[in-house]
Amino acid sequence: MVAALILIADGTEEMEFTISYDTLVRGEVECTSAFVGPTDDAPTSVVATCSRGVKIVADVAFDPAACAQNDFDLLVIPGGLKGAETLSKNSSVQLLIREYLNSDKYVGMICAGTLAALTSGLPKQPITSHPSVKSQLDKDFEYKEESVVVSGHLITSRGPGTAFPFALTLVELLCGSEKRKAVSGPMVFPEGVHW
Amino acid sequence: MVAALILIADGTEEMEFTISYDTLVRGEVECTSAFVGPTDDAPTSVVATCSRGVKIVADVAFDPAACAQNDFDLLVIPGGLKGAETLSKNSSVQLLIREYLNSDKYVGMICAGTLAALTSGLPKQPITSHPSVKSQLDKDFEYKEESVVVSGHLITSRGPGTAFPFALTLVELLCGSEKRKAVSGPMVFPEGVHW
Repeated sequence: MVAALILIADGTEEMEFTISYDTLVRGEVECTSAFVGPTDDAPTSVVATCSRGVKIVADVAFDPAACAQNDFDLLVIPGGLKGAETLSKNSSVQLLIREYLNSDKYVGMICAGTLAALTSGLPKQPITSHPSVKSQLDKDFEYKEESVVVSGHLITSRGPGTAFPFALTLVELLCGSEKRKAVSGPMVFPEGVHW
Repeated sequence: MVAALILIADGTEEMEFTISYDTLVRGEVECTSAFVGPTDDAPTSVVATCSRGVKIVADVAFDPAACAQNDFDLLVIPGGLKGAETLSKNSSVQLLIREYLNSDKYVGMICAGTLAALTSGLPKQPITSHPSVKSQLDKDFEYKEESVVVSGHLITSRGPGTAFPFALTLVELLCGSEKRKAVSGPMVFPEGVHW
């Protein structure tokens, strides 16, 4: 079975996290959420207080060794400024991002989550992010204004408003375009919106 | 301050819940989530295991007396088949829906959440829902296929794919069209999507 690891921290954007997790589960991807604490030490709780106050219980506490060893095919870094700061500054997360990409596994970053591309020292390539962090990224990357940017195994996106096409793109990359259609249909997008 | 009460149960669709809560908070609406247990008795926990496995900690356990007395301006019933069944079959929730509408407060129902319009005995009027429960509703209501249907103070919608326009409509009704625009902009919807 295809499997995804979705990181979460205090301040994570709850819509971006939930749309990614839920859409991937609908695509029959086995999802595990891992709570990353404010320091590199192992967190003592797995409850994230998200950016607009929704409290989400992660499946596990983030353990770099387990996350590296287990057979995940995708790593997702959601946004939310404070949450993205915690995730992108964590040295174990940075190492994991490089390891996943070096192993030709997928890494998805959305909104301020794309700051992790910078802190992980990824090479210059096409990316996008929330407009509010564009100025921190546009010197080191080929900055695009598209909703979803696929650059090899790195997929980036802009904000809650692009979270559905972001998550559906991840489903398509992991499980094919037929699965994307099968997931998208029952979600009942408005007429004229073809995701 | 404008205030909203958002119900949640085991099996609630986590995207519909989270998009409603988060978008309303962005609109400066004070949100309280209340966990409704599987029976009419007071629940002993406030952690909802949602339809695709995301675990959300509600702000409070559902207490019909407190929910009725407090000054909420909006009641939201999210979907997710199992969660909507729990919410729509709860006699206190049914009473609350009628009380809110009789007091000219807003009630939002999305996806299978619209089943609560039937179980609460609301009069025949325009509604919509997830297509999978249409056959349970189209004899007793004027069934529409639109993404969001506003019928007086009752607002209904179709599924996760219409959750953003649903939540933004609620923001507009409570806080005005300027606030809707102010909330929608930073969400960075794809070009051509005007919510």
